[in-house]
Amino acid sequence: MLSPNVETFLGCEAPFNEARIVLYGAPFDSTTSFRPGTRFASRIMRGESYGLETYSPYQDLDMEDAKVFDSGDLELCFGDAEKALKDIEMRVEEILEANKLPFMIGGEHLVSLGAIRAVARRYPDLHILHFDAHTDLRDEYLGTHLTHAGVIRRVWDIVGDGRIWQLGIRSGLREEFQWAREHTHLHKFDLKAMPQAMAALKGKPVYFTIDLDVMDPSVFPGTGTPEYGGVSFKELMEAAIAGCGLNVVGCDIVELSPGLDQSGASTAAALKILREMLLKLEEPFIKGPEQV
Amino acid sequence: MLSPNVETFLGCEAPFNEARIVLYGAPFDSTTSFRPGTRFASRIMRGESYGLETYSPYQDLDMEDAKVFDSGDLELCFGDAEKALKDIEMRVEEILEANKLPFMIGGEHLVSLGAIRAVARRYPDLHILHFDAHTDLRDEYLGTHLTHAGVIRRVWDIVGDGRIWQLGIRSGLREEFQWAREHTHLHKFDLKAMPQAMAALKGKPVYFTIDLDVMDPSVFPGTGTPEYGGVSFKELMEAAIAGCGLNVVGCDIVELSPGLDQSGASTAAALKILREMLLKLEEPFIKGPEQV
Amino acid sequence: MLSPNVETFLGCEAPFNEARIVLYGAPFDSTTSFRPGTRFASRIMRGESYGLETYSPYQDLDMEDAKVFDSGDLELCFGDAEKALKDIEMRVEEILEANKLPFMIGGEHLVSLGAIRAVARRYPDLHILHFDAHTDLRDEYLGTHLTHAGVIRRVWDIVGDGRIWQLGIRSGLREEFQWAREHTHLHKFDLKAMPQAMAALKGKPVYFTIDLDVMDPSVFPGTGTPEYGGVSFKELMEAAIAGCGLNVVGCDIVELSPGLDQSGASTAAALKILREMLLKLEEPFIKGPEQV
Amino acid sequence: MLSPNVETFLGCEAPFNEARIVLYGAPFDSTTSFRPGTRFASRIMRGESYGLETYSPYQDLDMEDAKVFDSGDLELCFGDAEKALKDIEMRVEEILEANKLPFMIGGEHLVSLGAIRAVARRYPDLHILHFDAHTDLRDEYLGTHLTHAGVIRRVWDIVGDGRIWQLGIRSGLREEFQWAREHTHLHKFDLKAMPQAMAALKGKPVYFTIDLDVMDPSVFPGTGTPEYGGVSFKELMEAAIAGCGLNVVGCDIVELSPGLDQSGASTAAALKILREMLLKLEEPFIKGPEQV
Amino acid sequence: MLSPNVETFLGCEAPFNEARIVLYGAPFDSTTSFRPGTRFASRIMRGESYGLETYSPYQDLDMEDAKVFDSGDLELCFGDAEKALKDIEMRVEEILEANKLPFMIGGEHLVSLGAIRAVARRYPDLHILHFDAHTDLRDEYLGTHLTHAGVIRRVWDIVGDGRIWQLGIRSGLREEFQWAREHTHLHKFDLKAMPQAMAALKGKPVYFTIDLDVMDPSVFPGTGTPEYGGVSFKELMEAAIAGCGLNVVGCDIVELSPGLDQSGASTAAALKILREMLLKLEEPFIKGPEQV
Amino acid sequence: MLSPNVETFLGCEAPFNEARIVLYGAPFDSTTSFRPGTRFASRIMRGESYGLETYSPYQDLDMEDAKVFDSGDLELCFGDAEKALKDIEMRVEEILEANKLPFMIGGEHLVSLGAIRAVARRYPDLHILHFDAHTDLRDEYLGTHLTHAGVIRRVWDIVGDGRIWQLGIRSGLREEFQWAREHTHLHKFDLKAMPQAMAALKGKPVYFTIDLDVMDPSVFPGTGTPEYGGVSFKELMEAAIAGCGLNVVGCDIVELSPGLDQSGASTAAALKILREMLLKLEEPFIKGPEQV
Repeated sequence: MLSPNVETFLGCEAPFNEARIVLYGAPFDSTTSFRPGTRFASRIMRGESYGLETYSPYQDLDMEDAKVFDSGDLELCFGDAEKALKDIEMRVEEILEANKLPFMIGGEHLVSLGAIRAVARRYPDLHILHFDAHTDLRDEYLGTHLTHAGVIRRVWDIVGDGRIWQLGIRSGLREEFQWAREHTHLHKFDLKAMPQAMAALKGKPVYFTIDLDVMDPSVFPGTGTPEYGGVSFKELMEAAIAGCGLNVVGCDIVELSPGLDQSGASTAAALKILREMLLKLEEPFIKGPEQV
Repeated sequence: MLSPNVETFLGCEAPFNEARIVLYGAPFDSTTSFRPGTRFASRIMRGESYGLETYSPYQDLDMEDAKVFDSGDLELCFGDAEKALKDIEMRVEEILEANKLPFMIGGEHLVSLGAIRAVARRYPDLHILHFDAHTDLRDEYLGTHLTHAGVIRRVWDIVGDGRIWQLGIRSGLREEFQWAREHTHLHKFDLKAMPQAMAALKGKPVYFTIDLDVMDPSVFPGTGTPEYGGVSFKELMEAAIAGCGLNVVGCDIVELSPGLDQSGASTAAALKILREMLLKLEEPFIKGPEQV
Repeated sequence: MLSPNVETFLGCEAPFNEARIVLYGAPFDSTTSFRPGTRFASRIMRGESYGLETYSPYQDLDMEDAKVFDSGDLELCFGDAEKALKDIEMRVEEILEANKLPFMIGGEHLVSLGAIRAVARRYPDLHILHFDAHTDLRDEYLGTHLTHAGVIRRVWDIVGDGRIWQLGIRSGLREEFQWAREHTHLHKFDLKAMPQAMAALKGKPVYFTIDLDVMDPSVFPGTGTPEYGGVSFKELMEAAIAGCGLNVVGCDIVELSPGLDQSGASTAAALKILREMLLKLEEPFIKGPEQV
Repeated sequence: MLSPNVETFLGCEAPFNEARIVLYGAPFDSTTSFRPGTRFASRIMRGESYGLETYSPYQDLDMEDAKVFDSGDLELCFGDAEKALKDIEMRVEEILEANKLPFMIGGEHLVSLGAIRAVARRYPDLHILHFDAHTDLRDEYLGTHLTHAGVIRRVWDIVGDGRIWQLGIRSGLREEFQWAREHTHLHKFDLKAMPQAMAALKGKPVYFTIDLDVMDPSVFPGTGTPEYGGVSFKELMEAAIAGCGLNVVGCDIVELSPGLDQSGASTAAALKILREMLLKLEEPFIKGPEQV
Repeated sequence: MLSPNVETFLGCEAPFNEARIVLYGAPFDSTTSFRPGTRFASRIMRGESYGLETYSPYQDLDMEDAKVFDSGDLELCFGDAEKALKDIEMRVEEILEANKLPFMIGGEHLVSLGAIRAVARRYPDLHILHFDAHTDLRDEYLGTHLTHAGVIRRVWDIVGDGRIWQLGIRSGLREEFQWAREHTHLHKFDLKAMPQAMAALKGKPVYFTIDLDVMDPSVFPGTGTPEYGGVSFKELMEAAIAGCGLNVVGCDIVELSPGLDQSGASTAAALKILREMLLKLEEPFIKGPEQV
Repeated sequence: MLSPNVETFLGCEAPFNEARIVLYGAPFDSTTSFRPGTRFASRIMRGESYGLETYSPYQDLDMEDAKVFDSGDLELCFGDAEKALKDIEMRVEEILEANKLPFMIGGEHLVSLGAIRAVARRYPDLHILHFDAHTDLRDEYLGTHLTHAGVIRRVWDIVGDGRIWQLGIRSGLREEFQWAREHTHLHKFDLKAMPQAMAALKGKPVYFTIDLDVMDPSVFPGTGTPEYGGVSFKELMEAAIAGCGLNVVGCDIVELSPGLDQSGASTAAALKILREMLLKLEEPFIKGPEQV
């Protein structure tokens, strides 16, 4: 008897019960202001993940030893951002209730808000680690408060002053940079403030959100708003691995728009970041906590 | 002294006061369920329109004799469909108040709803002439009532039974086709019912909305939901010219997604349809009404 | 508890036990002589199938009433054609043993040979209905006897003279056309010989293989060896539906190379052909045999 | 001892001395007003020609029996049209002096002027058979008299009134259409006037120039100025074969811009037209004149 | 009353009278020897500029405080380089007469010659700061003296020995490198000679011309002649800002070919360089001269 | 009398008898496991090579002084890897018998095996210098021992332990990395071990094989299995030049898949590596051995 066609990210085939991490896709890009297309990221990433190996020579760890479940993509409402955020929030609640770590593949950056609403309810002391090219601090954009250009401002509504670390930022309104001085820890241009952020966030429950456009467009052209002057792949990979050594209680990678890079390279970059993050998050369980 | 850089559709350079037709772009695609990108149609069409001639050998008419004003693109809210529709409605009201004919370049098909709301207020006996591959009659889709897959259903809320003529339809839910039997004049697969529709609509105020995907994807691949089995370019051109001989009080062409056809041909098809429609609408004024 | 991510062709979600038709993908293109890429067809088609509706207004039938199981893609050896054919043959045997109809999505045309080997063993009187732009009758090509340019020659090795009907053929060596005169029923350029073929094949067990490049490249550019002068979408759709009214005991559609048509239209064409074929094959079971 | 890498169009491998037809490429597109790229046509066509067969089932003739020499591409000056035309003229003179038929692969349409200058000197009674979407009758464009939008006007300077047959024309200035009434035989929209043209041109020395954009963009999107409403591939193929039955003393196909159609289909269309034209021109020599 | 559709580069909306800098596009690429397409750069850049912010976190300056007027694109003759250069020269004269700084967006590199002719007439002591991958010192190419491969040689005809600083050069004929030793200050491979160039050029009137292909193709693939081994985005940005601190009396950025980079990233790179240059040029007026 | 159309890599026009290096293309990609397309590399590279100059400012050497013969592409069997390898082996034997250096342009990496078989027969002490992103040490993959994922394992069958230096490796199975510890000199992530490799290989006969995907995908996206974290262009160029200073008795560059990078930049990168390698290999003959 033949089996149905199950498709997962490479090596994410643990049964739900045994998994420690649950992946889910959030194919939503309705508030994207410039070039849409991030809705296709999770589906394309799943299919292309078989071009990658399960083994990481960087961490000497193998996805075959990790316990990750891929719950597939949400079916989200286009054209009504609030409705989509609700559906994301519910999925995350379900994952948290099963005592698993929710790991989202965007979609545009606004989807992080849905996840963080649920995670913050469970972890009132939630802190945010945010890699991005853009400030994402607009209070309002073209008449709406729910926009990928303002997602971190909405997150601030929830977690408040001093809880948000923003790294790699190189684009925004003058007003956003000014506002950040009072309300967030914003570090411009690169990820060199990671040691400082790591020290400050140590032990806190952290939601780790990576807008992949923090990479330079020479590395990662497959994104809707390419912003030159970003970090290299290795810089991001190392900082992403480091961040996953924190007490991460939720995370996401967002803003891959695969159709904008027809070579497929941007998708490959996103997948390798994903693999390295999953392996680092799983490291204590693979090696035993004392080995880490 | 140098002039600022005004960009219009080819030959649409009449001053607002003298114009009889006002073009406007509605770059909105947030409810697109499959592949977004129609937001770029009006801007790309303007730039590419200089590949076309002003003269039509089909109608022996020249855009140089037409009086059309291009009011540019609206700046629409992404992620909140109702807000976007309001802004479209206001633009149309402004055009109607100046006693000019509003001609919209979409965007996805939902934008027609904003225009029709305004036009229907002014013309309570409004009828709809609708060319499309899809029924667009869904009452609800992924939890929202405002979706490009249901725009004609929402138009029906306004104009009611028997006022909507749908031609070229070849895709939809079974339920939509059943619903149409009671509420609209739906003709499947092609535009051969045009004489019948023309007879029925003669003298009525008509809003003419063309979803360009009524054309076969071999002709017009640059659209988000290509549906084979459609009409040829000449069939659409002839029917579109015919329709513009009615008492048209508002119209639009929608669903060109220029990035999906990198050859630029689909954009060229949309532009030629636009030119022929504008010329037919202007014919009585160019030739004098008695010549038509 | 969340479910794993099952991906199927639109509406092909019957449990294996209840299904009457079993789909399987054969992602193989190693012998493609010109431009490879058909290996991606089945995966891309699955993902894009959600742009289609389950309902056919042509046949007034709905995939929701069909019983089709999608068994996913085979994992085939690249670089060793014989090995790949063996794996296909085994999958087909498994499907036939369960008394279900095997329906393959290629891949290049050579994959049909694997399927036909298994089907012909079960149905010694097997006949072939073959739509294609190319003769596919080369005995040898670049030193090998297993090549997509000669698949029908290899099929002839199995079924022998007079059993193969070839329609739409418009490309080949002079020698192939000459050879065909003695051994197959070859009809050039279009599908107009279908009534004749239908009459001849009536009641016989038929393997129906459609090389999608039988369509004109204006309709279907997404194929490795585009050959102008082909049939329209409607001509193929009608002939494909007709053919599925025969006693079909196995079938396939091959040679979609999705990456060659970045508009996605060719994939949409293949999917609509697939839907219409599945519905026609299921029609006796949906309507009851006396209604057909 | 290994041989150098000779590249020719499929089956065009006759030694110069034995050849009756000489192909040459004219990679020039400097006056292209909209989207350049035709300079790549001849090189790309050579490489892709191996996707075609040498045998034509339409004419039952085989390139293996034809005597055609491919002299490669000219190296033309970009940015100085007159200089480029001179170089083309010289190549054609060389071919004519060897008593062979010059067959050019453009490039943009202006290149025809260089060839016709040489051919007209040898054949003072030269007539022109011209297939195109565009009138190409502008006397001046953006300040120059040498432009692809006016090439036929410049040809008229040489051959004068009544010698030029223009078919398929569907785009131009009003003034060009008016001018044509007095000076050329212009037939709009399609190739249905071919019998009339054939009768008029019978026995005359004819230069046959085909702007491939006479085909509809649904068939042939790979061209700089796509103009909908054109002819099908079969219509062009049949008319091109017919035209080659005249007393053709020079010919060309121009305006393929291969990069604009990334599927490669437009290149395949151009190649098949080329093959059929070459075969028809060679038919008297292959079959013996009495068989034609 | 609705306004006409004015399109400018982001934040370049000063009235002509108030502006200190005047932008103009020179869409010309007729002498491009390899892959044309730079003619589209200015139009595409205008449209895409809305993906950028007006504020620069690098310089802490905002385009909202700058006074820049966008005069749109010239309509240049294709196929006659001298004619096109004349039109560019006239536009620059007009800008200089109004005592404004001319800033050109190419087009291929030859367009700089038109601008420099006008600027050199006004500033007899003109020096040139030239960033490029290529020497551009050919005296003649394919029979013409006006070619993008020799534009700096033609500039040398005007300004003479020792006035031209060439940085980043990594491609050219052996003879060009030799010639440069006697006539220009040529620095190979990178921009490290900027301090030296800055010192030498201090106080002189400088025309600053940046061939964007000075960037590595990994950063900037959207150019006709990609040449590996180039500078990073940050290196160019910093050197471009530095150069704009000189006494710049004219400048340009050239050789973006947007169609060659379908991700849009190359266009984004060009735009960010443009923004930073404009801000630096405006800095004395925004901050007051004493603050710089 | 006109000459036939000979096409070679830029500057590789020496007669066979005079040449010291013989280029040959191996257009084969049948075992490619992910995205095929490397079969087009040699043909596209030839055509695009005219965008490069013959002169290298890096080495101050000019291809005009080199003696390289381009023998064109082999016509290889698709679908039967062993057959293709045989044909490659025979070509290499022919070149070696003429006492010339064979330089292959792939194709996928498996083609190296054919060349190395012939070279190893002539040079029993053959060593291998291997740059790659991938280990290529799989013994078996999808049921075959001949696969591009295991080519170096097959090479090891021939040359044995300790003879293979692998640099830049950053992807593979855990088992492959383990296996390498015993059998090859594998250096991860970059080319920094070159001095060590150079010392060890000094004087030995070396086959130098470069899988171009050793470069980072930001530099070289045009390859079937992009693997981030690779080396820069300059790093590869310098190491490739260094390696060509060894006693190289055969070499190749493989795995360019030009269609995956539509900007053409990846092809330009491959060509520049090729030029620099050829120049270094020719340096002793151009300068005289004592000058090197």
